[in-house]
Parts: sequence; structure tokens; C-alpha cells
Amino acid sequence: MDKIKIGLVGLGTVGSGVFKELYNNDKVEISKIVVKNLNKKRDIKGLENVQISDNVDDIIFDKDIKIVIEVIGGLNPAFDIIKKSIENGKHVVTANKELLAKKGEEIFEIAEKNNKVILYEAAVAGGIPIINPLKTILSNNRLTKVAAILNGTTNYILTKMEQDSADYNEVLADAQKLGYAEVDPTSDVEGYDAAYKIAILSTLAFKKRVSIDKIYREGITNIKAEDIECASDFGYKIKLIALAQIFDESKIDVRVHPMLVKNNKSLAHINFVTNAIMMQGKPIGEIMCSGPGAGEFPTAASVVGDVMTIASEINNTDIILPMMRCTHSVPAEMVDVTETENRYYLSVNAKNKIGVIEALGRAFSQNNISVSNILQKGVQDNDSANIVIITELCKEKDMQKAVSLLKNDSCVNQINSLIRVME
Amino acid sequence: MDKIKIGLVGLGTVGSGVFKELYNNDKVEISKIVVKNLNKKRDIKGLENVQISDNVDDIIFDKDIKIVIEVIGGLNPAFDIIKKSIENGKHVVTANKELLAKKGEEIFEIAEKNNKVILYEAAVAGGIPIINPLKTILSNNRLTKVAAILNGTTNYILTKMEQDSADYNEVLADAQKLGYAEVDPTSDVEGYDAAYKIAILSTLAFKKRVSIDKIYREGITNIKAEDIECASDFGYKIKLIALAQIFDESKIDVRVHPMLVKNNKSLAHINFVTNAIMMQGKPIGEIMCSGPGAGEFPTAASVVGDVMTIASEINNTDIILPMMRCTHSVPAEMVDVTETENRYYLSVNAKNKIGVIEALGRAFSQNNISVSNILQKGVQDNDSANIVIITELCKEKDMQKAVSLLKNDSCVNQINSLIRVME
Repeated sequence: MDKIKIGLVGLGTVGSGVFKELYNNDKVEISKIVVKNLNKKRDIKGLENVQISDNVDDIIFDKDIKIVIEVIGGLNPAFDIIKKSIENGKHVVTANKELLAKKGEEIFEIAEKNNKVILYEAAVAGGIPIINPLKTILSNNRLTKVAAILNGTTNYILTKMEQDSADYNEVLADAQKLGYAEVDPTSDVEGYDAAYKIAILSTLAFKKRVSIDKIYREGITNIKAEDIECASDFGYKIKLIALAQIFDESKIDVRVHPMLVKNNKSLAHINFVTNAIMMQGKPIGEIMCSGPGAGEFPTAASVVGDVMTIASEINNTDIILPMMRCTHSVPAEMVDVTETENRYYLSVNAKNKIGVIEALGRAFSQNNISVSNILQKGVQDNDSANIVIITELCKEKDMQKAVSLLKNDSCVNQINSLIRVME
Repeated sequence: MDKIKIGLVGLGTVGSGVFKELYNNDKVEISKIVVKNLNKKRDIKGLENVQISDNVDDIIFDKDIKIVIEVIGGLNPAFDIIKKSIENGKHVVTANKELLAKKGEEIFEIAEKNNKVILYEAAVAGGIPIINPLKTILSNNRLTKVAAILNGTTNYILTKMEQDSADYNEVLADAQKLGYAEVDPTSDVEGYDAAYKIAILSTLAFKKRVSIDKIYREGITNIKAEDIECASDFGYKIKLIALAQIFDESKIDVRVHPMLVKNNKSLAHINFVTNAIMMQGKPIGEIMCSGPGAGEFPTAASVVGDVMTIASEINNTDIILPMMRCTHSVPAEMVDVTETENRYYLSVNAKNKIGVIEALGRAFSQNNISVSNILQKGVQDNDSANIVIITELCKEKDMQKAVSLLKNDSCVNQINSLIRVME
């Protein structure tokens, strides 16, 4: 039997990994590759036998190509490439989380109209098998919560800050040198990357289309070494958590922000660039998967898994992979973060004078907030003191009011940090 | 569209969970149930509308039934029921690990001959999605190692022994009262259950048929509270580990036995009845999944996932679910445990006299075994001392020789424990 022909768009880290993995495959062959720069030197075995071009039309209009792999990332020109590929009769495998999060509805509609599938295991949590299981073996569960570490860069930075008692900027510079952080780290450290991924995951988990615009997002740039140390005193780690919950089977709360995670939870022990996804629901209970969230080979493993999934059914039937199709077009009813309830870690720098604790206590009690832990480690040289409080569950609105009161209180120099605490 | 009709064989814990989950399902309906005892009282909503019989032929020869769910367990009559169901045109979903481990080759051959599938997500690690991912999205990886906690009963016992510094028999009795251990706990505590499961997993992971008869197996009945305490002093937990490794892409080493697992490994923190599976390979790297290993609802979740996987494709094509079929008929070349290399934890009770450490050291050095840790905590009242040693990597044969030497040494009262240590 002839091998199924594949067009590969993009030959960066992931693309190279995919090419190496599919080289000499029994069932499929990469017959064409499109790159941005034809003159770039590439030392990859087998590449000399493949037609390389800088014009995507060479793949899009090649009738022999049945599957297009898009691994260039970003919105444009990826959107056009995927759209035209589908319209020209190809199935698509992509690792493009930004495109899926922002334009998912459009491209899946085009795919359905053309009876094609778009698979994207590599778009979330690199090598961890999560998209495929959510669509198949887990799909009959009624999931109620997903809590995940989906960004390796920020998890690396937070782990190093903890282990070396180091400041954010120092660790970021190191991470950039080591290639764990981009020169412009905004997408990672401000939580955009994790937001794209949790938009995709929560859409699958709750079977409603979660809008990326409505995901509350806070990055890790304000996390201080002292917060990590203080959280540790209370038995917590600080992690950038992508959280998605559904209430009353309809109201969906999705957000990305740092959280204190209790040491007895598995997510607290996911370190460096590892990703992890915890899911709760019925009837399954609670499960967790962890593994490499990025990297040439783990990501390639997921792309290849998707390619072989399509290849296995491509010749068998007209309606291929019914479970792997997009069936979630109903928009989710999203809850604004101001409507949520959380526990909070609050660090306040106050003047060293009588009445500080009373003022703090008043701000909380006036807003119906109960304190769970409080810690002041003496007084600093400048006659101020850091006081750290962890609250019980309370309303975000009430907490914001309490913080406003404290900001204007004459005892308080400044609010150091306000970080949510995982239940 | 008419609902796809299903026959359910067995209405115990798992069967009840499956019935409750599929009650009022849009796509499928359980139209007949076969039970052992028709007179047993069952208070399950919706059961009154289903035909219940004590004769499996009522399902096997019902032409309207397309899928049979077998959840009675054990070899017989499950083997016959599955065989006849397939021969009469039904797909099968089963949770029967013993049957799959012992008769897998036969029933999969019958299934292929009749163009039917047998799915069994629930047979290994209850609710954790592992069989489906191994067959689909992970199938192109070249896995080299699986290390797993696959038996909830023994993991519960070991966790309780550690937390309460309690003896095996005491904790077993408690576990039996709580329903975490059977009245006859042999299958769990002697490692049979875990062996069935790792036979299934390693067959899928290495794509060769692993014979249950060649799996080395040791249970937890000899683990002492002192071993757990002493392991803890060295920074380890003791877990019943199902281990499968492949060497030189052909030699397969599969075994179930207690192991010391270093605290920095995730498997060390899997407690009570939770199961976990760690996999290593290329290109994926290392991933781990954990979750409920048993129970009415998690297990039902997996059965239902399989049912819906079949239901989604049953009307679409002649060759359904090509990736979910059994394609591993080549027998694995199995390595005997005596040919393996391991690290060891050895606890020896010795007389309190001059020359004991020298005798121990000699037994090791004569057999090319290097010591990594050694611990003696004083002398006991009966003028004997427990000495614990952890070795570097050495040959199982050499270790057995060293133990023989020590057994016959006049300094040694007895060998307390010999437990392997995870690399």
C-alpha cells in the first residue's frame, strides 16, 4: 500500500522533531515541507529526499497530500494555511494553542463543513496525553474542575525562586540564558500561554466553548522571594495555576493566576518545566497526569500520535474519528472573577505602631472575612513590619474592599502581595 | 435513531455503577442484564424496566444486542461468555484482568476472526485512562519502562503501616473490616492482581505478548513495620511496584515485588488506594498518571468510556476502531529475574560480637557487591543487632549468593528482609 502523504508547515524545534520521528515510518511519509527561510542550514537525516519550499501553496494545492501538520504557531499566517488546507481536502494536525483558543470556533466549523478533522494533542501540555483522552475515553464524565500547571517557563522560574531563595528578575535572566524563557517572556510570565491552554482544556472538559477574552489572567511578575518563603512557612508552594470550574452545571469560572498550593497536593510537587493536569468529576473521581510540557521530542510525540490516529482511519470510512471532532459550539456562560469565592494570602507592610493588627482585623471583619493564619516575624530596620494573613473562603468582592480599606489605612505602608489560595 | 442495545453480564459493584451511569443515556441502552442470583434485592433506579435473567444465552443469542459488558471477573464462565458473544456478532467491553492476562491471546484471536473489538480500559488502574491512550495517542512511542502501583489494597496496607507504624497483620485486619481487602486477600497481597495488570500494560507498552507465567511475583506479606521505618530513615517509601522494562529492544523484564522508592520520586507519594503509572520512552520522555484504581464509579467511568468508543463508530464502518484492536501476537522474550540487576535493601539480625560487619562486608565483596548505605541502631536486649544495608546496582544472582553466605555465617541469626530498591 502507498504511504499516506503529509505536508509539514514549519521546521523549527517541533517540526524537526516531527520530521525525525516520522522518517522511515511504515504508513506515512512527509512528502513536502514549507519553511520561511530556504537558505537556513539544517542538518537533519533524510531531509535531502524531501521537497522543501517557501510557498505554502505547494502543500495546500498538492492533491496527494492528505494530512497537513502546522507547527509554525501564532495567528497568521497559520489561520489561512489551516483554512485553505481543509478546504482543499486535507486533515490537519496542529500544535497552535493561540490559534485554537482565539479562532477555534471558526476553524472547527470549516473542518466540519468539509468533513475533515483538526487534531491538536500537542497544543496543550506537550507530551502529556490529555486532548485525546478527554475526547474519547473520558468524554462521558461530567467533569467539574480542572486545575493545571500548563506553562513550563513560569513553573521553572517559581521552582528556582523557591530552591535558591532568589528574586524573579534574577531567575528570569538565568532562564533566558538557558533557553527556558524567551527573550520577550511576556506570553509566558503574564499567563497568556496558560490561558490559551486552559481555554482549550475547559472547552473540552465542560463541553461548552470557553471564550479566551473572558478568562481572568494574572502573571507571576509580582511574586516575591519573600512570598514563596512565607508560603513555605505555612506549608504551601506558589504555582501559576490554570483553573477551570463549573458550578450548577452551567456557570463556568476559568482563570490563570498564581496560587498557594498546599504541600499535601500533588500539584505542589510539580517542579521545573514539568506540566500537570488534575481533573475532578463524576463518575471518575480525581485523576492527575504529569509529564513534559514542551520540548522537541515530547511535543513531536503528540503530533505523531495525532497523525497516526488520522492515518489509521483515513482509508476506512467517510466519517472518520467521530469522537475526535469538535462538537462544542454552545458558548459557555462565564463567571467574572469578581463573582468568585477564594481563600487569599495577603502580605501587608505596616508601620510599627500600636493598633496595626486591630486595623487589619477590622478591614477583614467589616467585610465578612475570617482569618485562617497570621504571621508577623518581628519588626524590620526601617521600623516597619510585614504581616501575612491567609483567609478562609470569602468573596473576591469582599476581599477587594478589605484591600482598599487597608491601602487607605494610616497604619499601612503598602500592600505587598495578594495571592489566591487553592482549596 | 434507535439506541444501541447493550447486554450487561454481572450486577455487582462495577455492574451497578455501569448501569447507573448508562441509565437514560442518549445513544445506548442496557436492554438485558444477566445475574447469578435473580432473588437478590437490588435497589437501583431504572432496573425495573430492564429484562433481568440468570441465563447468559438470553444476551448471547439476542440479535439486537450489539455490545456485551462482562463484569463478573474470573476465568470461568467469563471466557465462554466473551467467546460466544463475539461469535454471535457482539463487541465486548470487559474489566476482567485475570482473563485478559491468562487468555488474552485466545480471545483477541477470536475477536479479530469475527471482526469485533474487545475493550478493557477498566481492567487496569480503574478510572485512570491508560489502555486507550497506550493504543492510540501514545502508540508511536518506543516505551522502555513502566513502573506502576496497580493494586489499591496493598498500597492502602503499606500506607497505613507507615503512617501508624503498624504491623502487616493488624493493618490487614483493619482493611478487611473497611472493605479495602477481601476476606481471602491472596490475590492482592501476594501480587497476583498486580501481575495480571502489568502483563496487560507491558504487552501494550512493548507491543509483544507478555506471558503471565513468566512474571516474577512477590507479595507484601513479609514486609515489616521496621523495614518501612528503616527505609524512611534512608529517605525511601516501600511500595508494591509492578515493573516492566525492555532492554536492547527485545529482552523484556516484567515483575511485581515490593520496592524501596526514593522520596523524590512521584510514585513514593501515591498513598492509600490510589493507583499510578509512570512510563518512560522515546520521544515522549517520562509521564505519569494517577487516580482511583478501583471503586464502583471510577471503574464504571472506564467501562462507559469503552462502550461509547464502540458506540460512536459501530454504525460508521466495517473495520471499526483500527487502533483499538489487538495487534500484538508476537511473544515477548522474557528475562528471568535471576538475570536482572538491582539495588537491594537487606536487613540482617546478627549476634552482638566482634567481626559481624567484617563478615557482612566479606559476603558482599566476594560477590562484587558495593555497599551504598549501612545502618545499625545500637544493640537489642537479646544481645542481637539489626543491621541494614542498601547496595549499589548488582546482579540478582550475586545478591542471592551473598545472602546464602550470610545465612550460613555464625555471626548471623537470620535474614530479616531482602527488598529491591528502585533505580
